[in-house]
Amino acid sequence: MADSPNCDLKSLSPLQLFEKVTEQGEKVRALKAGKAPKDEIDAAVRMLLSLKLSYKTTTGQDYQAGLPPKDLVLINNGTAKEEDEDLVDPWNVQTSNAKGVDYDKLIVRFGSSKIDTDLINRIERATGQKPHHFLRRGIFFSHRDMDQVLDAYENKKPFYLYTGRGPSSQAMHVGHLIPFMFTKWLQEVFDVPLVIQLTDDEKYLWKDMTIEKAYEYARENAKDIIACGFDVNKTFIFSDLDYLGTSAGFYKNIVKVQKHVTFNQVKGIFGFTDSDCIGKISFPAIQAAPSFSSSFPQIFNGKENIQCLIPCAIDQDPYFRMTRDVAPRIGQPKPALLHSVFFPALQGAQTKMSASDPNSSIFLTDTPKQIKTKINKHAFSGGRDTIEEHRKYGGNCDVDVSFMYLTFFLEDDDRLEQLKQAYTSGELLTGELKKVLIETMQPLVAAHQERRKQVTDEIVQQFMTPRKLAFEF
Amino acid sequence: MADSPNCDLKSLSPLQLFEKVTEQGEKVRALKAGKAPKDEIDAAVRMLLSLKLSYKTTTGQDYQAGLPPKDLVLINNGTAKEEDEDLVDPWNVQTSNAKGVDYDKLIVRFGSSKIDTDLINRIERATGQKPHHFLRRGIFFSHRDMDQVLDAYENKKPFYLYTGRGPSSQAMHVGHLIPFMFTKWLQEVFDVPLVIQLTDDEKYLWKDMTIEKAYEYARENAKDIIACGFDVNKTFIFSDLDYLGTSAGFYKNIVKVQKHVTFNQVKGIFGFTDSDCIGKISFPAIQAAPSFSSSFPQIFNGKENIQCLIPCAIDQDPYFRMTRDVAPRIGQPKPALLHSVFFPALQGAQTKMSASDPNSSIFLTDTPKQIKTKINKHAFSGGRDTIEEHRKYGGNCDVDVSFMYLTFFLEDDDRLEQLKQAYTSGELLTGELKKVLIETMQPLVAAHQERRKQVTDEIVQQFMTPRKLAFEF
Repeated sequence: MADSPNCDLKSLSPLQLFEKVTEQGEKVRALKAGKAPKDEIDAAVRMLLSLKLSYKTTTGQDYQAGLPPKDLVLINNGTAKEEDEDLVDPWNVQTSNAKGVDYDKLIVRFGSSKIDTDLINRIERATGQKPHHFLRRGIFFSHRDMDQVLDAYENKKPFYLYTGRGPSSQAMHVGHLIPFMFTKWLQEVFDVPLVIQLTDDEKYLWKDMTIEKAYEYARENAKDIIACGFDVNKTFIFSDLDYLGTSAGFYKNIVKVQKHVTFNQVKGIFGFTDSDCIGKISFPAIQAAPSFSSSFPQIFNGKENIQCLIPCAIDQDPYFRMTRDVAPRIGQPKPALLHSVFFPALQGAQTKMSASDPNSSIFLTDTPKQIKTKINKHAFSGGRDTIEEHRKYGGNCDVDVSFMYLTFFLEDDDRLEQLKQAYTSGELLTGELKKVLIETMQPLVAAHQERRKQVTDEIVQQFMTPRKLAFEF
Repeated sequence: MADSPNCDLKSLSPLQLFEKVTEQGEKVRALKAGKAPKDEIDAAVRMLLSLKLSYKTTTGQDYQAGLPPKDLVLINNGTAKEEDEDLVDPWNVQTSNAKGVDYDKLIVRFGSSKIDTDLINRIERATGQKPHHFLRRGIFFSHRDMDQVLDAYENKKPFYLYTGRGPSSQAMHVGHLIPFMFTKWLQEVFDVPLVIQLTDDEKYLWKDMTIEKAYEYARENAKDIIACGFDVNKTFIFSDLDYLGTSAGFYKNIVKVQKHVTFNQVKGIFGFTDSDCIGKISFPAIQAAPSFSSSFPQIFNGKENIQCLIPCAIDQDPYFRMTRDVAPRIGQPKPALLHSVFFPALQGAQTKMSASDPNSSIFLTDTPKQIKTKINKHAFSGGRDTIEEHRKYGGNCDVDVSFMYLTFFLEDDDRLEQLKQAYTSGELLTGELKKVLIETMQPLVAAHQERRKQVTDEIVQQFMTPRKLAFEF
């Protein structure tokens, strides 16, 4: 608020109004405590009443000290969600439904838009390419402002892609590849530059981990990311711990965001408390800043205000809701977003994957034998208890993890549809479906391992060196 | 606290214990609200009671929710000071006493040590130089661990100096020179490297100012600082907005500090509220980080753990109390400090100077005529109402601003003593004392202006370029 003491109340968001009322309340108390002149106290009280009225007009709620406006509390799904709602924030994904999170509800709650057939068709027209199966199958299911990106693209206006990863361990699993596989496709069909943030600073702040370890994981993870096949001439990968110390443009955007977001706001969005360290509290600005092209002067030739498009899992949306709220106030365009569903754990779709549980997913380092054993032993089945029952009633693809994994990794639409029908009708047994998954994942992981072997430290260094990419701006 | 969930309670500070109790209370509430199993709730309650007991044993106070332990509240002089106490923090200095802040009380409250004759004599022995008149006259009056710095120095162990300035405007006044004049002397007599931080990011965060303006002020202020006569081969001046983007070592130390300081702590120390932006909340780490030599790999040849000595005005001490608290937890030596008194406003010693009021001090851009007019019109006098009374009862040097200024700028001890006796006895009139001050300040400011004219943009650039200084580490 320090920026605009006399700003028009009508232009304020509910939370900003809430803060104004709180501030004014504190002022009145201070004046009374300090035995200020009566007319000064009266004026302050009048202002307080008028602010409370504006608050009520805007939010439809009475101001209550300590209770931020409801629409913002809703954003923090951790504290104010309703009984049967899923919990989704950057650190937790929980649902009681075996089918997984209810994504239609999430779209309503987050206020994003569904990726519908019209939008998918439009992407096909704009790029002249068949839409990726992640789009066709609703794996990327939600967006913000993707139509604006397409408007601009059709008018030959450039944009760039931004995605990232928190390098919490050396071990990445196949689910971690989803955003990168999709981002690679976007980069190819739109032919745009890409920046990939490795938030090693975040992992240092959140985990019991040294800075050196977090940075080491960042570089190791970069190898797996590069092995997805990104073009070094069009892609810049950076570790925060590294890049923040090499780009004044990046830090300037961070401090701009940090000036325009209050503790009340990050408390509402991320659920931080007074016991959290100040590093966590200010971190959201570091994930926000790559949404602004001026954070990468070397790539964009110093040109600012280039549109950014962020493909990411939906749990990262709180960061970018905050970024989109701040963007116009610091004279920057709002980043657009494409959101993916979560990748299910082998044990079932109720929880997000955990890199610390080796049996919760297929890891990129797994041998063919490990893959086979994991799928056979751990993949939650939607099949029936006995072969007889299965033949009679059929399996349930909605909760079957092997089938879910195949929707992610089996590109052949017809084959997938056949499998679905055969499994649902009872013709295909659980063991047979698992076999298809094993035969899909084994070569996929082996090929990844083969490509990763080619990624030398020198290649990582090339990707991670700030430089001009093969585009003119 | 995330770092050490199982750490020994005895090693925790009162505030850390307070946070542990608060956290545990929240946990108990959450368990009860979530209808957790009875034995789980019971175990959590037992842990809560045991934490409360540890808190009471350590602090001698009962735990009260929302009320951090008293010794820490005392550090934040803004909220919990006693009626007759002075208010001193990085943004406010207030006292009701015309002689100015009671510095002896401040030493007790801040827990620092007085610079006594023994220490001054020791500095003289160690350096072989007559102590600076700022030391002899109690202008630098308080310290932390200066004896340790001298121990190390006598054993040929290196240290470095760190001081700084918040570039809130282009206009610097003579009071702003005090820490720099003293730092220059320290640098000369000890022959050590010096880093000077210009917190342009801080000014952007706190003031209604653009990033570009803050950076411009930083470079302008650098000229006045350089004009104090620093040796370019031994001095590195940096703007945060600039240097943060050129040194990974600096950012790593910032994020280390940010991991080890909670919002509760900065709230206690600096009085931040939930309505403050996250940039302010995390800023203290940015002022802390230059206390660690690894923030300047180019200067120290990558060598870490070199002792730092910080000369500064006492209002900056809260930043460095915090730094000293964090240092051992991130494996760094605590910085030592030398604290100066405040430079009084022309209008009297009750308030700190304000760069926004041109009549509150003598500015470095003032002409000889302006200096004369300001001193004659505005310098608060300790003289009597009439010449007759003055002759009879004498003037009061303790509240006379002209005399105070002379203690800062008139180097000749004998002359100052003569003036004091003559003024106190009534022999010297107010106008005559002011004349001495005018004749002291006019050439001093003119000489500064002359030196500043020589400071070209190229010279500024030299000082502000990260590079090896003329020392071996």
